[in-house]
Amino acid sequence: MNIFVLNCGSSSLKYKLYAMENEEVLAEGKVERIGQDNAVITHQSTGKEEVTKTMPILEHTVAIRESLNLLTHSEHGIISDVNEINAVGHRVVHGGESFSDSVLVTDRTKDILDSLAELAPLHNPANVTGIRAAEQIMPQTPQVAVFDTAFHSSIPPHGYLYPIPYSVYQRHKVRRYGFHGTSHKYVSQRASELMGKNIEDVKIISCHLGNGGSIAAIANGKSIDTSMGFTPLEGLMMGTRSGDIDPGAIFYIMKKEELTLHEIDSMLNKHSGLYGIAGASDMRDIEKGIANDDKLSKVAYDIYEYRIRKYIGAYIAAMNGVDAIVFTAGIGENTPSIRTTLCENLSCFGIIVDEEENKKRGEDAEISTPESKIRVFVIPTDEELVIARDTAAIV
Amino acid sequence: MNIFVLNCGSSSLKYKLYAMENEEVLAEGKVERIGQDNAVITHQSTGKEEVTKTMPILEHTVAIRESLNLLTHSEHGIISDVNEINAVGHRVVHGGESFSDSVLVTDRTKDILDSLAELAPLHNPANVTGIRAAEQIMPQTPQVAVFDTAFHSSIPPHGYLYPIPYSVYQRHKVRRYGFHGTSHKYVSQRASELMGKNIEDVKIISCHLGNGGSIAAIANGKSIDTSMGFTPLEGLMMGTRSGDIDPGAIFYIMKKEELTLHEIDSMLNKHSGLYGIAGASDMRDIEKGIANDDKLSKVAYDIYEYRIRKYIGAYIAAMNGVDAIVFTAGIGENTPSIRTTLCENLSCFGIIVDEEENKKRGEDAEISTPESKIRVFVIPTDEELVIARDTAAIV
Repeated sequence: MNIFVLNCGSSSLKYKLYAMENEEVLAEGKVERIGQDNAVITHQSTGKEEVTKTMPILEHTVAIRESLNLLTHSEHGIISDVNEINAVGHRVVHGGESFSDSVLVTDRTKDILDSLAELAPLHNPANVTGIRAAEQIMPQTPQVAVFDTAFHSSIPPHGYLYPIPYSVYQRHKVRRYGFHGTSHKYVSQRASELMGKNIEDVKIISCHLGNGGSIAAIANGKSIDTSMGFTPLEGLMMGTRSGDIDPGAIFYIMKKEELTLHEIDSMLNKHSGLYGIAGASDMRDIEKGIANDDKLSKVAYDIYEYRIRKYIGAYIAAMNGVDAIVFTAGIGENTPSIRTTLCENLSCFGIIVDEEENKKRGEDAEISTPESKIRVFVIPTDEELVIARDTAAIV
Repeated sequence: MNIFVLNCGSSSLKYKLYAMENEEVLAEGKVERIGQDNAVITHQSTGKEEVTKTMPILEHTVAIRESLNLLTHSEHGIISDVNEINAVGHRVVHGGESFSDSVLVTDRTKDILDSLAELAPLHNPANVTGIRAAEQIMPQTPQVAVFDTAFHSSIPPHGYLYPIPYSVYQRHKVRRYGFHGTSHKYVSQRASELMGKNIEDVKIISCHLGNGGSIAAIANGKSIDTSMGFTPLEGLMMGTRSGDIDPGAIFYIMKKEELTLHEIDSMLNKHSGLYGIAGASDMRDIEKGIANDDKLSKVAYDIYEYRIRKYIGAYIAAMNGVDAIVFTAGIGENTPSIRTTLCENLSCFGIIVDEEENKKRGEDAEISTPESKIRVFVIPTDEELVIARDTAAIV
């Protein structure tokens, strides 16, 4: 069974084609600058040369059609006909309270998705555009929606409710939803395999540290809490997002700087985080800054580490224990120093890191020593694979 | 040496007179409804009858003068002359970055305090009014200001900086200040005494749970983090305050409900917390609700407990260990069930509660068993005594 995985943004699209028998990636690619005259498609079928094309691509339908043309291309392709694709799996950011698992796309699904647009205005409409475009081009092929929020639907009320008027939750569904669910699900499942344990028997804290970042507390295979909330702004310090901040500070800044809602939202989402403190949102630049004795780079790094550390402690308390901590995503996979610092600063829990193992990159690794009371893993995340698996399971 | 401790609110005033030789309370009282024709003074000298008077009191000067009249009253008083008061200690909520310790009030002190009004508009102006009124009445008596924020001035930059543009901190001093410092200082000091240890050798988590609530991480006698931030709105779920919430949720609610800054501020400060979920801000009412199977009372209780628990875990991580946890203030002192639930849900840290000890009220108590790996205390807080001590030390 071949599954085509699509992740549509407002002006971009990423895809992967899987042969599910052995979960092999047959091809992958991306289209950037959709809506412009100089859109760029990059495509690579496994074992073949990468190809790049620049051309006008004004719509997602065209972008998907061009991707399929490359997949079936005599020279660059890997399948001979679009009919060899058995189903399409779509990443959808927000499933609201309606979707606690991946679903087959029906008319009703699309109606609900349209109604959820308000909850994730930057992402959901693009995801739904991708679904409609794929349906138009492949009307006979089943489409499946896989939600970033679904894995967190197991969070209990005391974890998902904010201590605000209950009527606000009832009227507007303002609650914690959480994001990166597909990633947290994948790495926690993988960690339990590496531990040789059933995921239903372990407590895992999963740290997805990318340009966006979130932590999840996963007890017995279920997410019971996560740091992102109603939106992806809550929680950890991120590349350009503030994460947690005193609401009173927000009101004060709005008054002092005479900011509109849009402006303060933009400040906290785009000009805060590592970038806000150190002027750079990329952890590699922060590390360079520290090497050059830049004081604010060091402060940014310290805040970043400290806030992750506090969430780890909080989630140990939330689950009344933890068996394993997992690091994943850009920074989680590629910044050994953050992992070392975190684990050293959590030595009271009996965590001991094997510095040789901690140097490994690009592969699953257990970076704690056999004596460590909590096992620590680095697991490269693979959200597309989860989407492909869920899609295959549903169709 | 006799110290007069004053805590001035915008329309109220509380006072205590201490004989510092044995830290004895000679008298205490309060004035309510200052500014009205029917203000009420309640006064009690130790060992004598409580007296209550209703009269017009339009200004803080008058309120203080009436208090002094009662203190020196032939029948209700305890001293014969105002000159027997050697110094006045004032509670001041916000010391900003200017005051890291209690200070003698000078003209310069008052200028700085005036400039800080903006940071705590609900509290500081009233505190400063009290200082000026006391000076006017007792011009020869030294006045000392003791700040709620001062104990937290030891929090390091990675704890006090928010991950927002650094220029916002530079321009507007938006950072974590923390509150309840006098209480956290008192109970942590007392806990170290009860442990028979020097406070410089222990790590303590202090939970001040009143109608407002905050937690502090105190390592080696110094506050290194606390849950309240730039304002007292951040952190724990409180009686009517939300505590931590996704900033993105705030923006969404403002849009959906078309709220002004003032209205959302009011919603999060006055209509949220326990009250927002369960319709009651008093923990005793929440417990009654639970006894009557009220679902939202139970949810409110669970959120309340869960959020304290996560902060305890976070602060264990922040200090890389903890020797003792202390509960204080209204709920912390008088709600054994919260302490039991918290400790049971933190059993992974080796906390064991002695349920008999946990039933005690109104006295210092160690409620953990000798086997417990973390010692747990209930210590009635005494902010006035700390103010009196600081004042005595300075004059």
